[in-house]
Amino acid sequence: MSFKLDEKTLQEDLKYTGDFIKVVRSRVELPDGRVGHRDIVRHPGAVAIVAIKDDGMILIVEQFRKPVEKILLEIPAGKLNAGENPMEAAKRELEEETGYGCTNIQYLGKIATAPGFCDEYIGIYKATGLTKGETDFDDDEFINLKEFRLEELKDMVRQGKIEDGKTIAALQFI
Amino acid sequence: MSFKLDEKTLQEDLKYTGDFIKVVRSRVELPDGRVGHRDIVRHPGAVAIVAIKDDGMILIVEQFRKPVEKILLEIPAGKLNAGENPMEAAKRELEEETGYGCTNIQYLGKIATAPGFCDEYIGIYKATGLTKGETDFDDDEFINLKEFRLEELKDMVRQGKIEDGKTIAALQFI
Repeated sequence: MSFKLDEKTLQEDLKYTGDFIKVVRSRVELPDGRVGHRDIVRHPGAVAIVAIKDDGMILIVEQFRKPVEKILLEIPAGKLNAGENPMEAAKRELEEETGYGCTNIQYLGKIATAPGFCDEYIGIYKATGLTKGETDFDDDEFINLKEFRLEELKDMVRQGKIEDGKTIAALQFI
Repeated sequence: MSFKLDEKTLQEDLKYTGDFIKVVRSRVELPDGRVGHRDIVRHPGAVAIVAIKDDGMILIVEQFRKPVEKILLEIPAGKLNAGENPMEAAKRELEEETGYGCTNIQYLGKIATAPGFCDEYIGIYKATGLTKGETDFDDDEFINLKEFRLEELKDMVRQGKIEDGKTIAALQFI
């Protein structure tokens, strides 16, 4: 037996508008015809960049993440600006967070970070041909730049030293 | 130069309470002493299971995800109940979503799904020694069960046929 799976929206109410997320509560028709509710976090979408230097080192940013109250190691990433081309956003975020420009950038794939309650997709890009310039952090962004080899990063995932989902997922594309 | 990265909470306001998520707006002291705000989605935490049959096939559930308006292929997963032991939750979710019990279960690691705005961690478990029983879906859960070999799953990630972040990340642990 295979279920019909779709859920039709019957009504949607805006519950909260934050700086970049919104929360809506959606009334849906379930596949069996009954009515259910889904709380949904709406997010503008984001990009993340696996930036590989000519010597093979991969750029990693270290930053405090308030929601988990922890300093995490992550690949450079950031939210899309309104109407922004994702590949341009990837180049912009790489430069802002690490100071590196790139001569080559390639789309690898995308991930839904938390599709049970959030619509965020992160586009994953690979950047090479890196050239060092100046960082330009967001006003509320504080970042330390690090670099590791791919095999080191894979070990760090297994050792629990890298917890960020997009960073772990991105390793699957390279 | 290396930044001090922590952010101290000055105030926290509850903005929305949904069925299982909450949203708070936090006023924080930034590392440079200025004041900033963070919208934070609070989530009960979850578990996900890489369940491998004796013949090497890995269980995958197909379900509609309203936030992304799409049918996704994912490893079995689910939210923690209040006070629930995560390993017990992993066994429970595996059985509810796939009908399979397991004789061996092992913790592989954890991922922060969206640490920029959400506190959700998903514990990743590997289940083997599977025995087929009955499914027991949540009231609003509609799922088709599939199975693939590990190499097929890795190909599907690169081909864009698997988009779920936790599923892609989980492959890095096995």
